[in-house]
Amino acid sequence: VFEVNWDAEAAERGGYEHFMIKEIYEQPKAVRETMTGRLAKDDSGVTFDELKWTKEDIAGIKKIAVVACGTAYHAGIVGKYLMENLARIPVEVDVASEFRYRSPIIDDQTLTIIISQSGETLDTLAALKEAKKLGSRTLAITNVVGSSIARESDQVIYTWAGPEIAVASTKAYTTQLVVMALLAIYMGSLKGTLEQEKARELCRELRNLPNQIHELLEDVEPIKTFAQQYGFKEDVFFIGRSLDYAVALEGSLKLKEISYIHAEAYAAGELKHGTLALIIEGVPVIALATQKDVYEKMLSNIKEVKARDAVVIGIGLKGDEQIEKYVDHTIYIPATDKFLTPILSVIPLQLLAYYAAVTRGCDVDKPRNLAKSVTVE
Amino acid sequence: VFEVNWDAEAAERGGYEHFMIKEIYEQPKAVRETMTGRLAKDDSGVTFDELKWTKEDIAGIKKIAVVACGTAYHAGIVGKYLMENLARIPVEVDVASEFRYRSPIIDDQTLTIIISQSGETLDTLAALKEAKKLGSRTLAITNVVGSSIARESDQVIYTWAGPEIAVASTKAYTTQLVVMALLAIYMGSLKGTLEQEKARELCRELRNLPNQIHELLEDVEPIKTFAQQYGFKEDVFFIGRSLDYAVALEGSLKLKEISYIHAEAYAAGELKHGTLALIIEGVPVIALATQKDVYEKMLSNIKEVKARDAVVIGIGLKGDEQIEKYVDHTIYIPATDKFLTPILSVIPLQLLAYYAAVTRGCDVDKPRNLAKSVTVE
Repeated sequence: VFEVNWDAEAAERGGYEHFMIKEIYEQPKAVRETMTGRLAKDDSGVTFDELKWTKEDIAGIKKIAVVACGTAYHAGIVGKYLMENLARIPVEVDVASEFRYRSPIIDDQTLTIIISQSGETLDTLAALKEAKKLGSRTLAITNVVGSSIARESDQVIYTWAGPEIAVASTKAYTTQLVVMALLAIYMGSLKGTLEQEKARELCRELRNLPNQIHELLEDVEPIKTFAQQYGFKEDVFFIGRSLDYAVALEGSLKLKEISYIHAEAYAAGELKHGTLALIIEGVPVIALATQKDVYEKMLSNIKEVKARDAVVIGIGLKGDEQIEKYVDHTIYIPATDKFLTPILSVIPLQLLAYYAAVTRGCDVDKPRNLAKSVTVE
Repeated sequence: VFEVNWDAEAAERGGYEHFMIKEIYEQPKAVRETMTGRLAKDDSGVTFDELKWTKEDIAGIKKIAVVACGTAYHAGIVGKYLMENLARIPVEVDVASEFRYRSPIIDDQTLTIIISQSGETLDTLAALKEAKKLGSRTLAITNVVGSSIARESDQVIYTWAGPEIAVASTKAYTTQLVVMALLAIYMGSLKGTLEQEKARELCRELRNLPNQIHELLEDVEPIKTFAQQYGFKEDVFFIGRSLDYAVALEGSLKLKEISYIHAEAYAAGELKHGTLALIIEGVPVIALATQKDVYEKMLSNIKEVKARDAVVIGIGLKGDEQIEKYVDHTIYIPATDKFLTPILSVIPLQLLAYYAAVTRGCDVDKPRNLAKSVTVE
């Protein structure tokens, strides 16, 4: 029986060594599916047949509460940036296990957005019920049709990523980011805070993402090499500012959960308030520098860690000719709108985590102590 | 010249081996000073002669933005819990270096609270200017009279902690927490969200804090022993829920900055979403369990890490007879109101960091790479 199952599983993996790498490679397709029917054919804007909000609906939302756990929580942090910037609605992001118990200030002018790949995360489901009890409207973003969270929520947006088997979430995250981007454009257009031309530009860039992800996945050799070179280090730091910080959080979680390296993400400006004490010769630092408005500040932070002889892997935008001068290695990602960059910059971090785990001989798809869907408290 | 300075410094340290431990021991006095003239003599409430807010003033505050760096940021997180719970005003806490660049949603109905021990932290000062530009009212909480942030701000509350010399902040933090508590009571009373009887109870408990801190400082031997026993571990995790999580953040920063141990704090409910993979035999976990409303959930999280053979040091309330059964060692803190517990529970964490750094032979008062006041970006 065991062998039969194993064969079935191998077949399911479709030639890939692990579900995780298979799912990483499925991202161009998954991201495209998420946009299908939502991105207008002429790129003029975004529609959600499952929402059909009016101008009055959006005007009634004075605050957005995003509640999630783990990777989905990180998608929520990106969502905060996008919705606050494009729709100018204040957004608060909470870890579900904290939200439930802190008597949050939520009412009928609040929209609570619940993010969960499985739709079964127990703390998130309880948070959703709590938000409803407080009178909030609720919107679920989930990957699983008919899941508890989908059923319990007033409205649902499905990510259409296809089944995710590996414990470490990859395509669920990127498709959640795509939903956050679509939703921010949708809200901003409806509310009038986002100009038509800017919306069109974002839509065009969204449409281009699957090809850009594909492009990133074509050239994984350098990442494999870094993973082999630094994969046996026990501590790694991820730094970034603004949206790059949000992605740094996800990159460090990926590395932590499958390679068991103690990885930690820091808002780069906070380094000097403590963490810099841990940066010594040879400590790997992954530095994201894809956000133009904080680029110079980020370079200063990179110089700070280089001055302590850290080994720095920079994540920069294609065409950036400066970053190479300050880091040891550079991974370039295709240029897109700054609000969409996380959907690309996370890809090399997923690959880095994957190859580090493989290098260390870890059980990639089933890391120790962790379950795919956390259905207990 | 060198020797003279050294002697002068030794004299300043007043018999203590380091400024940090001197400042830890100054906390009963510092906390008392912070309350003087603010806590009504009959414990009936809180007054701030430097604020003199009216009911109209408080009714005009629809949102509070707290902006700070490092330890002061952690004080802000505690402040969020207190102000949201006692005054029911939504509070958003930001790291100053992020706040500046994320185009925050701030207006003339926002009160921006700026926390900085030195009053000179560059990112914080810039955030204060940004908030003013956006029309927000501003209130500084600082320790240094006439500092840039004190001068730039509409109103100021001084912490009166006395000069803090050690890079790792201790008495500045606890006095910031006292200000947050006083302010939350002040706001709640003025707004009518806090009942007179509850305010009185909190005031009585505040008045008792210096004695309770003194009591904690009388019995440091067990903490010294833990530090010697586990001080050479390279990774330590701090876990807690709600206010205990806020204190865990500060405890991990303390340990990180002076002992160079890679310490990280986690909201205990988030463990299963990734960090649990790093918990293996012998990894020290500091588990705070002082908050009654999440106590049972916290015990479950302690069992989770014990099941992976972590070494658990529990921080519990005096009189708690359960916790000992689940942890390897327990540090008890005197019981007080749940909102004030952080002011006590952080003390053993400061001591743990101090003795770990001494055990490891680190330069406690001047940790590598760090400066007392971060006046560059």
